[in-house]
Amino acid sequence: MRQTLDFLLNDWLKVQALTQRPRFAEHSDETFTAVLDTCEKIAREKFAPFNRLADTQEPHFDGVKVHLPEATHAAMLTYVGSGMLAAAQDYELGGMQLPCVIEMAANAFFSKASVAMGGYAMLTNGNANLLMAHGTALQREVFAKNEFSGRWFGTMCLSEPQAGSSLSDVATRAVLEDETDALGPRYRLKGNKMWISAGEHEITENIIHLVLAKIPGPDGKTVPGTRGISLFICPKHLVNERAELTGERNDVQLAGLNHKLGYRGTTNCLLNFGENGAGAIAYLVGKPGEGLKCMFHMMNEARIGVGLGATMLGYAGYEASLEYAKQRPQGRATGPAGKDASAPQLPIIEHADVKRMLLAQKSYVEGALALELYCARLVDELHTADDEAREQASQLLDVLIPIAKSWPSEWCLEANSLAIQVLGGYGYTRDFPVEQYWRDNRLNMIHEGTHGIQGLDLLGRKVVMNGGAGLTLLAKRVNDTIARAQQVPELVDMAHRLAAALQTLGAATKAAWATGLPEEALANATPYLQAFGHVVLAWVWLELALVAQNNAEQAFYRGKLAAARYFYGYELPKVAAWLEVVRTREPLCKDLPHDCF
Amino acid sequence: MRQTLDFLLNDWLKVQALTQRPRFAEHSDETFTAVLDTCEKIAREKFAPFNRLADTQEPHFDGVKVHLPEATHAAMLTYVGSGMLAAAQDYELGGMQLPCVIEMAANAFFSKASVAMGGYAMLTNGNANLLMAHGTALQREVFAKNEFSGRWFGTMCLSEPQAGSSLSDVATRAVLEDETDALGPRYRLKGNKMWISAGEHEITENIIHLVLAKIPGPDGKTVPGTRGISLFICPKHLVNERAELTGERNDVQLAGLNHKLGYRGTTNCLLNFGENGAGAIAYLVGKPGEGLKCMFHMMNEARIGVGLGATMLGYAGYEASLEYAKQRPQGRATGPAGKDASAPQLPIIEHADVKRMLLAQKSYVEGALALELYCARLVDELHTADDEAREQASQLLDVLIPIAKSWPSEWCLEANSLAIQVLGGYGYTRDFPVEQYWRDNRLNMIHEGTHGIQGLDLLGRKVVMNGGAGLTLLAKRVNDTIARAQQVPELVDMAHRLAAALQTLGAATKAAWATGLPEEALANATPYLQAFGHVVLAWVWLELALVAQNNAEQAFYRGKLAAARYFYGYELPKVAAWLEVVRTREPLCKDLPHDCF
Repeated sequence: MRQTLDFLLNDWLKVQALTQRPRFAEHSDETFTAVLDTCEKIAREKFAPFNRLADTQEPHFDGVKVHLPEATHAAMLTYVGSGMLAAAQDYELGGMQLPCVIEMAANAFFSKASVAMGGYAMLTNGNANLLMAHGTALQREVFAKNEFSGRWFGTMCLSEPQAGSSLSDVATRAVLEDETDALGPRYRLKGNKMWISAGEHEITENIIHLVLAKIPGPDGKTVPGTRGISLFICPKHLVNERAELTGERNDVQLAGLNHKLGYRGTTNCLLNFGENGAGAIAYLVGKPGEGLKCMFHMMNEARIGVGLGATMLGYAGYEASLEYAKQRPQGRATGPAGKDASAPQLPIIEHADVKRMLLAQKSYVEGALALELYCARLVDELHTADDEAREQASQLLDVLIPIAKSWPSEWCLEANSLAIQVLGGYGYTRDFPVEQYWRDNRLNMIHEGTHGIQGLDLLGRKVVMNGGAGLTLLAKRVNDTIARAQQVPELVDMAHRLAAALQTLGAATKAAWATGLPEEALANATPYLQAFGHVVLAWVWLELALVAQNNAEQAFYRGKLAAARYFYGYELPKVAAWLEVVRTREPLCKDLPHDCF
Repeated sequence: MRQTLDFLLNDWLKVQALTQRPRFAEHSDETFTAVLDTCEKIAREKFAPFNRLADTQEPHFDGVKVHLPEATHAAMLTYVGSGMLAAAQDYELGGMQLPCVIEMAANAFFSKASVAMGGYAMLTNGNANLLMAHGTALQREVFAKNEFSGRWFGTMCLSEPQAGSSLSDVATRAVLEDETDALGPRYRLKGNKMWISAGEHEITENIIHLVLAKIPGPDGKTVPGTRGISLFICPKHLVNERAELTGERNDVQLAGLNHKLGYRGTTNCLLNFGENGAGAIAYLVGKPGEGLKCMFHMMNEARIGVGLGATMLGYAGYEASLEYAKQRPQGRATGPAGKDASAPQLPIIEHADVKRMLLAQKSYVEGALALELYCARLVDELHTADDEAREQASQLLDVLIPIAKSWPSEWCLEANSLAIQVLGGYGYTRDFPVEQYWRDNRLNMIHEGTHGIQGLDLLGRKVVMNGGAGLTLLAKRVNDTIARAQQVPELVDMAHRLAAALQTLGAATKAAWATGLPEEALANATPYLQAFGHVVLAWVWLELALVAQNNAEQAFYRGKLAAARYFYGYELPKVAAWLEVVRTREPLCKDLPHDCF
């Protein structure tokens, strides 16, 4: 993977150009490389060898404490020591001022080595970043800083047992206790939060929960919908203004651990807030009623993170199955005269269908990695580019983030299934890693906005907002790529195919909204999401092919061209199949009465 | 499911007509119904409640014995008591002389309730059936009869650690000891057999292994390829001609249990034959060198069985997610004015995308069930029809069996993934059954001939053998259906679409073989298999739609029409996408050198 990562960062995204920006001026090729080297090494030594252990030695709760494998504690300690929790932060905060694209690339190694062990750090980073953006100076000092240093870890508490996709139905209530608390207006929380990853553990001395809750009005009622939601800091152990533990336990209790299909190394919790008294103590972040806005501020990075996690699971499976295919003998070549049973067996990588399964995986996982890094690079534009580039990055991210989140969740899961298939019966056993990757990856279509939610977000909001500016800009970028590819004889055919697919997508988008009725337009939002994703990935692959074409005499680059051709030959034709129902606003699903099932 | 099963058997396949044949003359609607009722009840009471237990309480080996949950023993006892092991056998053998289609339909209940618990019986049935076809009178009396009665269970020992898909590389050797043994020519076996389902347990007092092995020639060498393979009966405990245990243990030892991703309730074993001495005692079945031919005699039923198992896992997930979707409130309708957050939440089945996921599952699982029963009905033609019908059934089965095995393995697995998605986070936990169905089902693309092998079998053998007779006959049947559908205004559009898909398939088949070179034709055998499968399923759905159209005023039948329309709108368009690479004999995968990965 490292060679591909370097190819994407250097040859394609040209990340070294970022060092010309003031924020990254002290960085260079060498510092970027050093960060990647360090993370690759820690991931290989402290994470990967224990990934199966984190699965089999599932977290368990003895009624007082949650127990994790010692290896998870050790891995986290090393990760904290690397400083990666604060990788993107200012030097004054103890950070490294790394670009987002390098931070993401470096974290990819941990996701690939053990996505479940890495979960604790990813959540802490997201939590602290959110506080940096919306917290008070003291909240940043007390909470965010101690999370970036790894002294405390953090969580995101959004879902409730009765409210997952529908956050407007959050029922946790927050009642004001003291508006003048130095740590922020102090509230008392009562409610239950479900699916809280890293919600309980003993890795750090404290856990900082960020909690969505509603503040009732004078009549005791809460505002319906997401406008009524506020955001709170709720530490497991109470702390004072000097960031010292007061010795008092906050009323946040683990009601139970969820026992999952995969991703088992990350605890997943039902947490009760304020069940035993006046309520859990919590401090308001930002303004009342703006909780979801604050939370969604970090949405780009969070969704890139999920997409990258899904991608790396796919990548891990690809590498494992490729290695297996090279050494496993089975079967013989079929020649014009049939097979010669007395000839020695071939490594299975010699069989066309095995190569097809490997090439499919390659096109999914390398394409997805490219997309995630491209999006991370756009986040750097948001933070450090001039106004025009920033505006463009924002518009592109609007339409690309639903794909960055959903596409790897679906297709790198498919890659994991193909990895199992390459290994055959062995792949189905727990003696090989591929079955775990497949189980772990199944989560990614569900959390951080389900596939269905991503489809509604894309077709219902992102491609129509600001007069369709995001889609228009994306189409312009795609057409730029097509125009360049049309100058390269080897890529002309792909350029034509992409142009046709883009046109079909544009026409379907218009047709979906032709009646202006959301229920008609959105009845097939998921097939639309799938088609949109495949067009985006085809564009990414044409971009990569343009770079690879310059070195087409080397096997590494020929591999990139082959993966691009695979995607165009075997995958892109599906776009038309998905879009047919979008274009015709097929009402079958939406109209079918229950009793017909 | 029962209503759909009755619809398929009675309204569509008209199984009652079979009672006019001499073999089934004592049967009637009532006896068929009674068998289905009994199996449905046993499956509900003795299998389904323990399916999760069979997964969590995985078989373990204490060095002497393999331990299974008591529930598995109890379920098997009840199953044996039902007489279903001998359902299709002659009355004289204690059988019920049931048609294959009824036997399969009845066994479907067990696969749905607990595919892993049911595995022991399915294997025993297949084993005994094979002995009925190829064993001597005494072999049938001693071994088959005691398997049909459930006194002993059986296995199929084909694969070895180094030989899975490539059976020609079987290395187990059989040396003649006594040609005159009453139980059959007695050999000594030495070798290792891998992936042996039900290879060890204590459910029955004995286990009858059917083992593929090679008999070395005078020079000590074996014949390369499958022609060198012979078939042997190798009991775990030795028995005499009166079917009494002699008290002597045969040298068949459990080397270890495989720990699988799913299907955990069925033991899966590495067995060592003859490791401790002169070799395990075994009796030749059929002629030397005809082992694979004998084994493949039962291939139709075995592959229908696997396909039906995959189908039933999909069905179980469909029912679980449908039930959940009806009662789980979440989210609100999107109207022209957006959402009203103060309105009560809707059951998620009200959302178009949830209905899409349910309708997709319905189209996969009900379509697959129809296909499996259609194939089982063809097996009845093979056994009890006149010569012409028998010949036609044989030709149709040639081309349909690879689909019957592979299609549900792929698409009912996809159904299981959609069932998880409908349940969201809950679906990802082990508190709900859907994640287990998904894990269990992943095996079905691997065993009993992988997906890749099915594709090669279909495109490389089945559609070209006998001058393409199978494909020609299938096309004739499909065209008959199209002609009937063209008379029904509501179905004309589907008829046209199916005609177009069939034409594309036929053209791609020709184009694939245009150069006559197997390596070119077969380079894309798996996409061909996928496309062929979707065309077959579209045909099946049009058949069902023709029946349902007669009662379109009833919700049950409208549901069938909706599932058919779903398949045509959302699935059938994929055919063209898959066939493009077949038609062009795309050489990308086959030609790619290793070092490009």
